[in-house]
Amino acid sequence: MDHFPKNQWYVIALTEEIAHRPLARTVCDENIVCYRLPDGTPVALADRCSHRRYPLSLGQLDGATLICGYHGFSYDCTGTCIAVQGQSRIPAQADVPSYQLVEQGMWTWVWIGDEDPAGKKPPLTPWLEGKDGWMAISAMAPIDCRHSLLVDNLLDLSHETFLHGGYIGTPEVSTTPITTTVDRENSIVRVDKHMEAVECPPFYERTTGLTSPIDRWQDIEFFAPGFYLLHVRIAPAGSAPRADGRDDGAFHVKVLYGLTPSTADRTYDFWAVCRDFALDDTEIDTYLDAMQREIVVQDVDALNILEQRIQNDPNPFEVVLGIDRGALTARRVIQALCGGYTDRPLANDEIEEPAMVKK
Amino acid sequence: MDHFPKNQWYVIALTEEIAHRPLARTVCDENIVCYRLPDGTPVALADRCSHRRYPLSLGQLDGATLICGYHGFSYDCTGTCIAVQGQSRIPAQADVPSYQLVEQGMWTWVWIGDEDPAGKKPPLTPWLEGKDGWMAISAMAPIDCRHSLLVDNLLDLSHETFLHGGYIGTPEVSTTPITTTVDRENSIVRVDKHMEAVECPPFYERTTGLTSPIDRWQDIEFFAPGFYLLHVRIAPAGSAPRADGRDDGAFHVKVLYGLTPSTADRTYDFWAVCRDFALDDTEIDTYLDAMQREIVVQDVDALNILEQRIQNDPNPFEVVLGIDRGALTARRVIQALCGGYTDRPLANDEIEEPAMVKK
Amino acid sequence: MDHFPKNQWYVIALTEEIAHRPLARTVCDENIVCYRLPDGTPVALADRCSHRRYPLSLGQLDGATLICGYHGFSYDCTGTCIAVQGQSRIPAQADVPSYQLVEQGMWTWVWIGDEDPAGKKPPLTPWLEGKDGWMAISAMAPIDCRHSLLVDNLLDLSHETFLHGGYIGTPEVSTTPITTTVDRENSIVRVDKHMEAVECPPFYERTTGLTSPIDRWQDIEFFAPGFYLLHVRIAPAGSAPRADGRDDGAFHVKVLYGLTPSTADRTYDFWAVCRDFALDDTEIDTYLDAMQREIVVQDVDALNILEQRIQNDPNPFEVVLGIDRGALTARRVIQALCGGYTDRPLANDEIEEPAMVKK
Repeated sequence: MDHFPKNQWYVIALTEEIAHRPLARTVCDENIVCYRLPDGTPVALADRCSHRRYPLSLGQLDGATLICGYHGFSYDCTGTCIAVQGQSRIPAQADVPSYQLVEQGMWTWVWIGDEDPAGKKPPLTPWLEGKDGWMAISAMAPIDCRHSLLVDNLLDLSHETFLHGGYIGTPEVSTTPITTTVDRENSIVRVDKHMEAVECPPFYERTTGLTSPIDRWQDIEFFAPGFYLLHVRIAPAGSAPRADGRDDGAFHVKVLYGLTPSTADRTYDFWAVCRDFALDDTEIDTYLDAMQREIVVQDVDALNILEQRIQNDPNPFEVVLGIDRGALTARRVIQALCGGYTDRPLANDEIEEPAMVKK
Repeated sequence: MDHFPKNQWYVIALTEEIAHRPLARTVCDENIVCYRLPDGTPVALADRCSHRRYPLSLGQLDGATLICGYHGFSYDCTGTCIAVQGQSRIPAQADVPSYQLVEQGMWTWVWIGDEDPAGKKPPLTPWLEGKDGWMAISAMAPIDCRHSLLVDNLLDLSHETFLHGGYIGTPEVSTTPITTTVDRENSIVRVDKHMEAVECPPFYERTTGLTSPIDRWQDIEFFAPGFYLLHVRIAPAGSAPRADGRDDGAFHVKVLYGLTPSTADRTYDFWAVCRDFALDDTEIDTYLDAMQREIVVQDVDALNILEQRIQNDPNPFEVVLGIDRGALTARRVIQALCGGYTDRPLANDEIEEPAMVKK
Repeated sequence: MDHFPKNQWYVIALTEEIAHRPLARTVCDENIVCYRLPDGTPVALADRCSHRRYPLSLGQLDGATLICGYHGFSYDCTGTCIAVQGQSRIPAQADVPSYQLVEQGMWTWVWIGDEDPAGKKPPLTPWLEGKDGWMAISAMAPIDCRHSLLVDNLLDLSHETFLHGGYIGTPEVSTTPITTTVDRENSIVRVDKHMEAVECPPFYERTTGLTSPIDRWQDIEFFAPGFYLLHVRIAPAGSAPRADGRDDGAFHVKVLYGLTPSTADRTYDFWAVCRDFALDDTEIDTYLDAMQREIVVQDVDALNILEQRIQNDPNPFEVVLGIDRGALTARRVIQALCGGYTDRPLANDEIEEPAMVKK
């Protein structure tokens, strides 16, 4: 069983981060250098010169050629070594691996696995692609924790009440029951929470103009292992969407996370907050950006600490509750993608019922 | 054999450090959160939420209830989990261990062992308890060294001459012979040193008003593994205590250390300096506090360095002298408390005579 | 096979660093304290008190006596313990090892091996010894990398073009062929590169007054494992030395490196730049010193990063080229000095021809 599922699309960078200069990233333990060719094409190569293992990300670009900063080995955009110093013959082993990149609006995805992605494509992210009717902000924070701790965090939003109180957390987020389902074939875990006639947190009060009470829906779709999509619906209490699906009276937010394993104890937390209202209001851009960054810092601080605690804790015991069903299911789906649990399909009716012994 | 003797009382905090907010301490590898209930009762629980292992010391107190800062698990002062989010049933395994605390004046002690302390009580520390006739100052410094290095340090005061020269060290401290005895049953090591008609160091000159020559006694009682009591007698040269024990012409100081193992390479160094003179002289409080803090910093710096050296030194050889008799005896008593040497009682006549081969 | 060749002379300090106060250095994992006696004689002892392993480099000198800063063990310049506290008898085991030092002008060398150096002397360094006709500047930089990475760096000067471009690197340094020879008996590797009618880099333009084109010779002599001598000849293009060896029209620079292994991942990089021109021009001293320090910082930064990469890289594969011949030969000579390859003499005709498969 692999440590990470490698034959997957992961977000490697904000699209705007990839420019005509080398950018170093590590995805699933693979050191990668990204850059953009003069014609704009994004490139990803192994960040390790074949000569002396020096990081190519410390080298320089000369047009479409990446030149190692130590002894000058030169590579084209396929990783083929096209020049070495002191001789014209180039050893065949001097080439370095290259990786497929896909740009999708604000995020760029990488495939680091050894299988051919073939028909597989990155998850759809139309809200990041400048489509009509949506406005998005996005950034990335590295966290010094294992990937599974960020998955746990995002799949159980009851933590908003405590870790993000005053921002997006209100009492109802932790007390409202959830519905958890799994699409085993597509490795999707869904956790739905519909709060009716509840308090409107500052994050949404300020941006939508609504006041308490509101209806607040949080419908999670986790495309294991690396993409998380939270569908938020904020509306005056009691105003349901119409039968035909239209939902004009409501405000919609999509909160996206790219959860990219960097190393065993480091994870990239790409995030985006997308909205279908106040599209041209830059003040709201600024407000949402500041608030979301504070929320992410709260998560980063907590997960950095938790990783340290877990590394020094020989006892793995943890109590399991109903609120953990989404996280537990996600863990099992990821284990299956790593090569575990393959003999036993995971279906909706197989989600483990957490042991809840009344004291 | 255990790494630390766990069924022991250790100082966990200055009493004033424990308040109506969580305080994190680690004693013998156990992460502990301390706080004070609204009625003043001190509480110590395992600093690990049963749900996701998040430190409870990062949570908040609501009256007598400690609420985890991640998902809101709530605990009473016995460690019983009294609320979880999203459901009314609480798993029995959700409780966390609690630890006994005993407040004794300026210091609070903890029992982390799995045996019942039963009749065992923390060592007596009347000088810290506001009794008539004594004034005390106290603080704590963490040291990045193993517990045994601090034991070595304190049991061999000849180091005062070199590490603390100009503060409490004078030439006679290192040249005066010592008498070492052991009370095996109570795990007490005693090292007595009576210096007659010697130089008065600044530490005592300034505080007692005496000038050289003085009689200076340093009688150590080490209650292994965690409590060290130095009885200091400072008097004009030649003035012995009376036959009935009264000693009016002398100044008495008790220097107390709580030596609490935190982890394998970290130790809490609680200290107190208590005196039976100049009780209301706050200038002397300030002077003694400043001097003792500098002395402790000298020890901390030296032991931090020594721990690093020892960790990188594959050769354990050390020369043994007469001055080491107290430290060697203390080491053996602690080993016995950890479960070693149990087949062989350690009595006064068995203290090893260090090999001293004349060159 | 040893980790380092220990029976060798290594530079331990700039001669001016050794004074009448303790200086701590670690050579081939041996912690050493250096100091100078009142009569000027340099001394090197093990930096580990025999009593409690405290670093003697934290002690104090009293005349010719080094006194431990913890409990006062006192040592003479041979490492003999001459006083301990609390007793007159001194255990024979209380002595500490001493090491031979040899001062040679600006550098002082140490022998840490267990064999008698006997006839072996440090390499000749007349340019550092204030001889007529030469002026030298020198300093030391520690690098957090293994010794072999610094050897690799210095034996392949093609890196000057990329890592030191604008300082000493010009295109021809990396494209001009090299001649590599080995003197197996004396563990010397020679790499010669004669560039004819090439660009004059700023480093030499500014100091010699010559302008492009020049003849520029770089003849390396590496006395494995610890001394590197680069003979540089800078002359107007086409001006060869005379048949009798005189070379008046040229400028000569000797660049010396002492490569001293400190620990498995730390190396001292002693350097000196010696010239036979502009001897009294302090402005050129200042210029050369600033330039060389920047060049060394470039190497230090690169090798610190490379060491980290290599430690985290399970794949040791590296492509081998003609430019690597010097480094590869040096590696094999050092392995032989460590006790490897002893059954197979390494001669000139045995230098491995790097595999160069045309793609």
